[in-house]
Order: sequence, then C-alpha cells, then structure tokens
Amino acid sequence: MTAELICVGTELLLGNTVNTNAAFLAEKCAMLGLSMYYQSVVGDNPGRLEEILHVAAERSDVVILSGGLGPTQDDLTKETAAKVMGMELVEDARAKAEITAFLEKRGRRITENNWKQSLVPKGSKVLYNPNGTAPGVIMEREGTCMILLPGPPNELEPMFEDQVYPYLHSIQPEILCSKMVKLCGIGESLVETKILDLIEAQENPTIAPYAKTGEVHLRITAKAASEEEAYGLIAPVEEELARRFGDLIYTDEPEVTLEMAIARLLEQGQLTVSTAESCTGGLLAGRLVNVPGISRYLREGYVTYSNEAKEKLLGVSHKTLEAYGAVSSHTTAEMAEGGAKAAGADICIAVTGIAGPDGGTEEKPVGLVYIGCYCKGKLYTEKNLYSGSRSKIREYSVASALTLLRRAILEEVCK
Amino acid sequence: MTAELICVGTELLLGNTVNTNAAFLAEKCAMLGLSMYYQSVVGDNPGRLEEILHVAAERSDVVILSGGLGPTQDDLTKETAAKVMGMELVEDARAKAEITAFLEKRGRRITENNWKQSLVPKGSKVLYNPNGTAPGVIMEREGTCMILLPGPPNELEPMFEDQVYPYLHSIQPEILCSKMVKLCGIGESLVETKILDLIEAQENPTIAPYAKTGEVHLRITAKAASEEEAYGLIAPVEEELARRFGDLIYTDEPEVTLEMAIARLLEQGQLTVSTAESCTGGLLAGRLVNVPGISRYLREGYVTYSNEAKEKLLGVSHKTLEAYGAVSSHTTAEMAEGGAKAAGADICIAVTGIAGPDGGTEEKPVGLVYIGCYCKGKLYTEKNLYSGSRSKIREYSVASALTLLRRAILEEVCK
Repeated sequence: MTAELICVGTELLLGNTVNTNAAFLAEKCAMLGLSMYYQSVVGDNPGRLEEILHVAAERSDVVILSGGLGPTQDDLTKETAAKVMGMELVEDARAKAEITAFLEKRGRRITENNWKQSLVPKGSKVLYNPNGTAPGVIMEREGTCMILLPGPPNELEPMFEDQVYPYLHSIQPEILCSKMVKLCGIGESLVETKILDLIEAQENPTIAPYAKTGEVHLRITAKAASEEEAYGLIAPVEEELARRFGDLIYTDEPEVTLEMAIARLLEQGQLTVSTAESCTGGLLAGRLVNVPGISRYLREGYVTYSNEAKEKLLGVSHKTLEAYGAVSSHTTAEMAEGGAKAAGADICIAVTGIAGPDGGTEEKPVGLVYIGCYCKGKLYTEKNLYSGSRSKIREYSVASALTLLRRAILEEVCK
Repeated sequence: MTAELICVGTELLLGNTVNTNAAFLAEKCAMLGLSMYYQSVVGDNPGRLEEILHVAAERSDVVILSGGLGPTQDDLTKETAAKVMGMELVEDARAKAEITAFLEKRGRRITENNWKQSLVPKGSKVLYNPNGTAPGVIMEREGTCMILLPGPPNELEPMFEDQVYPYLHSIQPEILCSKMVKLCGIGESLVETKILDLIEAQENPTIAPYAKTGEVHLRITAKAASEEEAYGLIAPVEEELARRFGDLIYTDEPEVTLEMAIARLLEQGQLTVSTAESCTGGLLAGRLVNVPGISRYLREGYVTYSNEAKEKLLGVSHKTLEAYGAVSSHTTAEMAEGGAKAAGADICIAVTGIAGPDGGTEEKPVGLVYIGCYCKGKLYTEKNLYSGSRSKIREYSVASALTLLRRAILEEVCK
C-alpha cells in the first residue's frame, strides 16, 4: 500500500514553521509498512488544494492531510477534501458537544465560526480531538482513503497515535513490527561499514540506520502474518547486532534516551553524579535533568566558565591552570575529581573546551574539547576535536560526555 | 514572480530527517518577495522526479531543488533536471579541480563516482561549493529558472546566501528589504491584538508575526525601487511598533538573540551574572553560554537540584525550604540572592519549579515555576504556570528567566 502526505499551511510556504508534522507522519507510515513516494505542501487555497488532492487520490492508496481545519474562513481543507471525495458535510453532535465543552473549560468565547468545526463528511469516521477544537476524519471511497488531521503537533500526534495508527494497522494486510537498537560511542560510517553485509543481504527484516548527534540508531523492521512471527524474525538480527557492537548498544527500547539509560545504570549501581562544565555551560546537566526523577542521583552541578570558578568551586589548582591552561586534560581531570568531592558524589563528569568562534589558537584550535570523568577513584579523560558552529561543537561535546559517563559507570557497575 | 521547492531524498519520505531545508529556502524566498504556492518532496527516483519537474517548470518561474547531487548511482537530480531543461551534461574543469582539492585535503580517496559530480548542464551557471564536493547549478531556459542545490544544510545554506540570493535578487524587478523586530515578555495573541489595525491596513510594508518560545518576532518587509526607499518605508512602521511596545522590543537586528541582547546590557552596565537552577538543570546557563565571550560577565553557575545543594551552594535556609518548600517564591528569592553572593556576581537569576511528569500536587501542580532575580540589592520574583511536556515546561522557564533577567538589568542600567 502507498501513502502520500499533503500539509496545508501558508506558514509552511513562508518558512515560518519547520514541517515537523511531515517527518512525524512519514516515520509512522514507514513503521506501518506503507510506501511513501510523495509529500506536498500547499497554502490555504481551495483551488490548488483541490487540484493536488485529485492527483494524490489517483496515485496513492492513503492520502494524509494536516492543517487547515481551523474555525476561520481561510481553513478549507475539510470542505475541499469532502468535495473531492464526493461527500457532503453534516453536523456531528458529539463533535459539537466536545467543542463547546473544550472552549467553556478554558473560559473562551464560542463564536459562530466554531460550529464550522463540528461539520464532518457524511459517512466518515470522526477522530475526536481531546486537545483542541478541530476533529479529524477518515474518509473511504472506491479504494482511496483520505485522512484529515489538525495542524498543531500537540493535537495531530496524539490523534494519529491513538486513532489513525490502529486504523491503518487494521487495513494493512501484513503486520509490521520493529525494534530500535541505539548505539553511542561509534560513528555512523563505522556502524554502516560493520553491517554493510547485513544491509545488502536484507529482505525481511530490514535494517535502517538513523544518525543522531553522537549516536546511531538502527531500526530493525519485519513484516509477518502475526506479531509473534515478526518478532521471531527480528530476534536473530538483534542478536547479530549485539554480537557485533556489544555494549556500544545502550538500549533496544524506542523511548529510552541515552540519559535515561545512564539514569538506569546509576540506579543499578546506587551511584550519585555531579557535573562540572565549562564550554557546554549547563547543557550537559540539562540533558541529565531531562530524566524525571534524576534528582535521586544528580544533586548538583557546576557551571565553571571562568578560571576562578574552576579553582573556587572545583578546587582545580592554580598551578595546573597556569601550566596547562583551562583547556587541557590536566584541568579536565582536576575538574572531574574536584567536582565529585565538592558535591559529595561518587562520579563527576567534566567538560572544558573551545567552542568558538573566537579563542582558538594554532595549538588549541576551536573545537578542541577535553572530557574528564571521575568515578570512585578512577579517572578517565578524552580529547576531542570537533568542527562546526559554536552550538554544534557544544552539542557534540555533551553527547561525548554522556558517552564517557556511561562507559565509566558501566565499568563500575560490571566490575 | 513565483518560486517552488522540490526537495529530493528518501530520508525525507521515511521521516528520518526533518525538512529544515524547505523552511530555510521558503523563508529566503519570502524575503526576496517571491510568491510560493507549492513545495514537494520526492525520493531518488528519476521517473517521479521528471514528472514533478515538468509540472513545476510549467507553473512556477523559479524551481529550486535540494538534494540528490551526491556521487552515487542513486543521485540523479542533476541528470533528470538537465533532461527536463533540454541541456546536456559537460565536465566543468574548475569543479573537477575543486573536488580533487576538497577530497585530498581531507585525506579521502577519490573514486570514479566523484567525477560524476564535476558534470554540469552546458550553459548553466555553476555554483561552486567550498563545503562539499557537489557543485550547485542555475539553469535558465524559456522563462523558467531551475536551481539545483546540495542536500546537506551546511552546504546548501552558504551556497544559497552567497550565490543564489544575489542572483535571485538581481532578477527581481523590485528591491525587497526587511527588518526583524523581536519582543519578549508579551504573548503572541496580545501582540497580534495590539497591531491588528496595522496588519489589516498593510500593503507595503507588510508585517508578519513569528511566534517563538517566549518571544514574538515581527518582520517588516517593504518593496521599492531602491534599498534606501524600502528602508524609508520601513522606518515609520518600526517607530510605530516602538511606540506601542516600548522596551518589550529587545532588538531590531535579525541575528541578535535574546541572550545576545542581555550580554550587551551586561557589557553596558559592566555587570556580572550567575545562575542558580533547579528544574531547568543547566539549560538557562546553557542559553547564556550561547554568546561567544560571555565569560567576561558569567563566571559561574549552579545546578542545585537537591534541597541540600540549595542550602550548601546557595545558602538557602533550611527553615525556608521546610516552611515553603523548594518550589516557592521564598526559595527562589533566597536562591537568587545566595547565588549572587556565592559567585561574587552583581546579579543572579534563579529558577525552581515542577517540570513533571510526576511530582505535582493539587497545591503545586506540574508546570508551576518560580523565577527569582537578584540585582544589586533588588529582588524580583515571578510565578508562572506552564502546560505541556517536561521539556516544553523547561524551555518556557528558560525563556521567562531570560526575560526577567533582561528586565532587571534594564532597570539597573537605565536608572
């Protein structure tokens, strides 16, 4: 089966908004085993939308639209799609009641316009919207399925997950299951080289690599007649990946992030951690604090941007700073050890580097970043050289620091 | 003149990548005064690409493509576009030399495939690429202009800025100039209400609002025969906005961020600042450290996630924490004052709140965030209630904290 996306919105044509809905919907369709060949963006213009809808309905089995379901005169996606599908609009009592309740709860005035949103194509499946006033709809006619979703991601995403995904799953003749194997501490090209034979020989299941900052994610997807059979096909591939990558794999659960995997290891070892940051300036602590409940393991962190702060808060020696400079493996080691002592933590992860755009020298260029990790008496240090913008260098530094932190905890927990 | 975008790439159809190129190119086209009615995404499939190129060349004056210029057999954008434009491919000596130099400098092996990238449509304008091996091209034929750009944003963006923007500017009959007025501390809907009359009456210049987290940006755009005339049209609108919004406007320079505006104020007042963060866990310091050279004003910051850390590092009293809790205006005030003293800074900005998803109570729900700012003896506190995910709540907290910090510094500097 083929699927096609049409995102409606002038804000996309003006570049005011990045089209994250397209990426979200495309990834979900891929997970469902739908083949996608086209995505389009059009404005709130019924003529152009109608024209593109005819083309899409002709060439794709499933056409998914987002946006243009608002209450204003400009929002004409539903009216246009119903016209193309040959369906008339009728009022849906439940939609009307839900819109009233939604607006009243928020103390917002109901205007005549709002009732436009309670109209749905006759015979369509209505997707009620607990997060906004625009219901979505699924229309089916002569082998074409057209799905209308509201534009705001906080309305579109739950509506898709809860109502559209199960529907599309049910009309798919085959079951598609996938697992996401996530790696850190290894580059994308090396990962690809190591699994080139698997990728080239693949049919079912397939392996797709996704490069993230400092991480590589591998999605294994299998088609089968049942979930059990699909996971049975995935298992040997996952085992093979485990053989090849060992503990570079930090999870096989899609929702687990690197910081969550680290929090689990901290829990497992009953270890506490602190942070000591120079060039990343709080971003590393910020990543760890992404994990709800991290307060049990991360009590405090230090942003020590100046040399004085490194001495005062972390006890880095004045001599070390003078002899080797703030950006050196000596300093990062003392930052890590001092940061653990100051916080009374088992572990401290420290970062110092030159994020640019200024401050680089021939000896210590922009992008030079030292990472240190102190873990119960052991010291790990790492030297990195990144290229890119100030923010890219800082992002990569955080990713490397989390990877080194994980490595240190792993050694402590598994020893 | 009309422009249309076609982004080529299977990774977009699979949802592996968010299409930031489309937003970048669309915004630039809007700045150039080009009208955009369509954007499309297709995979590396010459048949489907050719079909969509014919449609685009028919309906738009300028067709901009990104992606599919790589060295592999799959990359067929150039071949297909040249075919549609009726141009043959010929080797470009300078492109060949630059590709060789680029690869040799990086110690990368040159393969037979790479020479494919030195082929360009005969009679086209070649866009040389200092950041990669794929040159871009501009093809003109019978009133249609087709522009091919490489997919990676770090190659596409500078190529567009340096070579395509001036070209499109030169073929535009009118000059388009714009200014970006950025506001903080006021919501999008209130901004829109306050300028509704201006927006409704607008013709030339136009005003377009862009909502960002905790900020609203207003772009004023004017068309004229010369730059001078265009800026002359913009000036009274900008003055009117200044009258209506006063010092809620933090800049009218497009590249200046809120943290940069704050750094300028710190410089102006020769003030130093520190941070004391609980729920934002370093993200606030991280935003300030976005500014190169901030180390002169921000020497250190504290991530005090636990109550103990708040007492130990910031000197928050045990009594206050017991009586009012960690998430209270009393605690945030003591965090701010204590953080300034501990760091020996003139100012400290403090955040404490409940980012969720757990930890909320009826009295103190998820999303409750207190912000405190100590500035040379003065104390400012603010209570906020945000909704959304853990990361959204933290993002909004950072934006509000920066806004309060700016307000406090402004009062100090302007007193």
